[in-house]
Amino acid sequence: MSDSAGIPVWIDGQPADRLPVSDRGLAYGDGLFETILITSRGPVLPDYHLDRLESGLQRLGLGLSRLQVQQALHTYPGFHQPGIVKLIVTAGGGGRGYFRGDARPVCILSHHPAPAYPAAFHEQGIRVFPCKTRLGRQPLLAGLKHLNRLEQVLARNEWGSVDDFQEGLVCDLDGHPVEGTLCNLFIVEGDEVVTPALDNCGVAGVMRRWLLEQLPAQGLRVKETPITLERFRLAGERFFCNSVLGVWPVAHFEQDHWPAGPVTRLAQQLIRSHFH
Amino acid sequence: MSDSAGIPVWIDGQPADRLPVSDRGLAYGDGLFETILITSRGPVLPDYHLDRLESGLQRLGLGLSRLQVQQALHTYPGFHQPGIVKLIVTAGGGGRGYFRGDARPVCILSHHPAPAYPAAFHEQGIRVFPCKTRLGRQPLLAGLKHLNRLEQVLARNEWGSVDDFQEGLVCDLDGHPVEGTLCNLFIVEGDEVVTPALDNCGVAGVMRRWLLEQLPAQGLRVKETPITLERFRLAGERFFCNSVLGVWPVAHFEQDHWPAGPVTRLAQQLIRSHFH
Repeated sequence: MSDSAGIPVWIDGQPADRLPVSDRGLAYGDGLFETILITSRGPVLPDYHLDRLESGLQRLGLGLSRLQVQQALHTYPGFHQPGIVKLIVTAGGGGRGYFRGDARPVCILSHHPAPAYPAAFHEQGIRVFPCKTRLGRQPLLAGLKHLNRLEQVLARNEWGSVDDFQEGLVCDLDGHPVEGTLCNLFIVEGDEVVTPALDNCGVAGVMRRWLLEQLPAQGLRVKETPITLERFRLAGERFFCNSVLGVWPVAHFEQDHWPAGPVTRLAQQLIRSHFH
Repeated sequence: MSDSAGIPVWIDGQPADRLPVSDRGLAYGDGLFETILITSRGPVLPDYHLDRLESGLQRLGLGLSRLQVQQALHTYPGFHQPGIVKLIVTAGGGGRGYFRGDARPVCILSHHPAPAYPAAFHEQGIRVFPCKTRLGRQPLLAGLKHLNRLEQVLARNEWGSVDDFQEGLVCDLDGHPVEGTLCNLFIVEGDEVVTPALDNCGVAGVMRRWLLEQLPAQGLRVKETPITLERFRLAGERFFCNSVLGVWPVAHFEQDHWPAGPVTRLAQQLIRSHFH
């Protein structure tokens, strides 16, 4: 992401865009991040981002409170400008090897233009690449948005331009679809909306959570459970979501082609009316 | 690790110790590293470090050749001074999200004093902490020394001072011992020297490789295979190794206490005569 003109990067509350190479975030991926969409109505799902970050801080044992992160965000000028704010929390500098010692967490904030995707991705749906990269099994880190993202990098770089494929389908070690490279996955089976369980791998997206909470009020049942590739193919509908791009219907996957279905349109409509 | 006085950090051949926060190494742990011991006789196992790095570059799809890394190392003043050289290769800056686009790899070199461990760790052996953190299962990344090291960080930070425990025993999701937090593990059963297989997790250390190659000439059989906690406990000997600290006998683990055995002493002797 390129920087937004006029809004500098901040490191621990000061304008700065370079970090010592000894920082543990670089050395070991010892940290977490959030990517928050800011619309003209303000940040989208800020509390959900903070919830996930807070559970990550706890699981990784990083000594930074939700309140401290919240204050850092609100003080940052970019948090009040339409675009994307990327927040990185690293374990900081210091310590010796893997031992953190007295290292203190560091907050990095940067502001970027919101990505301008063609409306067709939203309207007609997207082409999805069948990624060969499998997500490993690690219950301890599953669901978190930590800085150890080699799996997503390898999956995304299996294909080139976003003009060819807009997202990839990524499976776990059993070959079961889990998510995209940057989105969560939903399928619709009858009146049940299903998203893969994230007990062993995957990132628990904030828009995934919001949809799981909102859809029952629309008369739909929701379920988090492992799914097979066959269920993905045979489902009535399938879509990807995240908090930045909203909902993208899956239009093409290998030899299959599907039109966008009614639940997918409903999810798009809910997002439009709540956030835009 | 603190910097060695007088030898600056280099980034891509130039003295510099700060990296843009947009670097993919920080953002995603998209990169690799090596920690090379330099004695008064020169670097220890430099070709083995380069072999592992090269296989990492290939597996991660990073466009940097072995020769380029070799040249970067040899040009760096720290590579010719006793101590430790840490080499980090990141995927560089640029790209968009997980897509690398035209990002070009970056080489970071830093020099540090060699750690001064008490001789007792080597002579009498070490106290080993039973880590609860399990290594996840990810065959694609197993063996590599990549920058996604949260598992090692979490395992090492289960205890505090190196005065209390000098290494931790880390198991896989099945509860089978795999390695330490910064060392590889060997056990001795009769005339067979066994080290856990690293097909699903773990770091394939260069000293582990060297011992696997050297020990057969000493009349010992070597084997890479999964082991159980019971085999670890019941073995005739057990020791940890890495290229910086050499071989440390395991003296204490939970309620057990063991003296250092003859194969452990032989491994120490081989290292002493070859490298020091």
